[in-house]
Amino acid sequence: IITMGIDVGSTASKCIVLKDGKEIIGKALTDVGAGTSGPERVVRSIVETTGMQLEEMDYILATGYGRNSFEQAQSQMSELSCHARGAYFLFPEVHTVIDIGGQDVKVLQIENGAMINFQMNDKCAAGTGRFLDVMARVLEVKVSDLAMLGSHSTKKIGISSTCTVFAESEVISQLAQGTDKCDIINGIHHSISHRVAGLAHRVGVRDQVVMTGGVAQNSGVVQALEEELGHKVYTSPITQYVGALGAALFAYQKRVKK
Amino acid sequence: IITMGIDVGSTASKCIVLKDGKEIIGKALTDVGAGTSGPERVVRSIVETTGMQLEEMDYILATGYGRNSFEQAQSQMSELSCHARGAYFLFPEVHTVIDIGGQDVKVLQIENGAMINFQMNDKCAAGTGRFLDVMARVLEVKVSDLAMLGSHSTKKIGISSTCTVFAESEVISQLAQGTDKCDIINGIHHSISHRVAGLAHRVGVRDQVVMTGGVAQNSGVVQALEEELGHKVYTSPITQYVGALGAALFAYQKRVKK
Ligand code: SF4
Repeated sequence: IITMGIDVGSTASKCIVLKDGKEIIGKALTDVGAGTSGPERVVRSIVETTGMQLEEMDYILATGYGRNSFEQAQSQMSELSCHARGAYFLFPEVHTVIDIGGQDVKVLQIENGAMINFQMNDKCAAGTGRFLDVMARVLEVKVSDLAMLGSHSTKKIGISSTCTVFAESEVISQLAQGTDKCDIINGIHHSISHRVAGLAHRVGVRDQVVMTGGVAQNSGVVQALEEELGHKVYTSPITQYVGALGAALFAYQKRVKK
Repeated sequence: IITMGIDVGSTASKCIVLKDGKEIIGKALTDVGAGTSGPERVVRSIVETTGMQLEEMDYILATGYGRNSFEQAQSQMSELSCHARGAYFLFPEVHTVIDIGGQDVKVLQIENGAMINFQMNDKCAAGTGRFLDVMARVLEVKVSDLAMLGSHSTKKIGISSTCTVFAESEVISQLAQGTDKCDIINGIHHSISHRVAGLAHRVGVRDQVVMTGGVAQNSGVVQALEEELGHKVYTSPITQYVGALGAALFAYQKRVKK
């Protein structure tokens, strides 16, 4: 049985193709999300990767912010459930999922693979991927280079404002004072982690803590979060696909129940 | 008796010189605040305006974010008290003061000239002058032209995000869609007013409502706030000086009590 999960997020579209609810046989990602050609492009890419057409999939389930715009899906499910499901598949001991996406942050409490509580911020850019985007632009570096650059930091720089706009001004004045970019970046990683830790504490943090979403690929944020929380934070190379993976797993469940 | 109030804000420094606690005989403003040459420059300007040296003033009182850095002051007082005092001097019937500054918003509840309750936001750029600065930059217009441009709006545009960062993205995509700048600006005025009204309702809004701070010079925001609150909102040409005025009034009180 072949099932597909598609996660149409705000800033990226992701696909996972699963065999028998167990084995990932294909994945694809494109850096544009809902309201763009993102879904179409990610589908084209998954078709190329797997050599299978959408019609050959036994069940397609869509999740994410733009899930309702993807018409080829048999059904839809909330990203919260899909994230919980995907994280549990990768880390059967998970109790806390911290998902930092392009424009939101979610913290899920998981018990036996099911989400029992959550907190979410999608109103404030602080603590989301957008915060890093803004900072990378000001620093004139690539978002994907932030982790590497931050790792060369030798001095602790505090960014006192949580607000993206005020923190941006702080970064600008640090630059004007000649502060090393690597130190500033390390400060930025701690700032976003501090914000996210605040949200996580409202749900309660229990081992294992798993971080998902695009920002989980930034090891600087992961480390800063470990310091803030005092817990090991697990990630996976496929953190960005966790929602799509959960969707593919639910698709399998739905297909089998039919 | 000549007293001076100086308000060293985050983005501007303001001075008022008062005769006998009644008559404004000089005022000066400079567009830079705490931690810069702002205080020095505004003093130079008030000396020119009044023809009086600081030594000739009978009492100097400083207020505002940077009040402790102004060494020529005999004493300091919180901006909340000074704002309340200044607004009461200009509007003896005032019960609510809404002060939108460059980086913060305060709403004060006033009873017989004294502040009895307040709410403040200085953590989030939304709802502050900074929000308008960011939007003006994206729209490539001057902050001082926003009111005039917004008044030409013919169509209601909703800006759904309160967050400055997310609202900025909305404005960019509105521009890309060819939406008229005047309509966008009107939407921006309503957005900031909506945010500020939320804060005001937490204190309670009672007539007369007086708006102070730099943003009160933007008649578009004042009008939008009147709509949001359902109350007439009073302003004065010297809204930016209300804190400095309060400081000069307290200076008079202190001098007389000596
Ligand atoms: S704190 Fe800053 S980033 Fe957060 S909502 Fe306010 S303006 Fe946006």
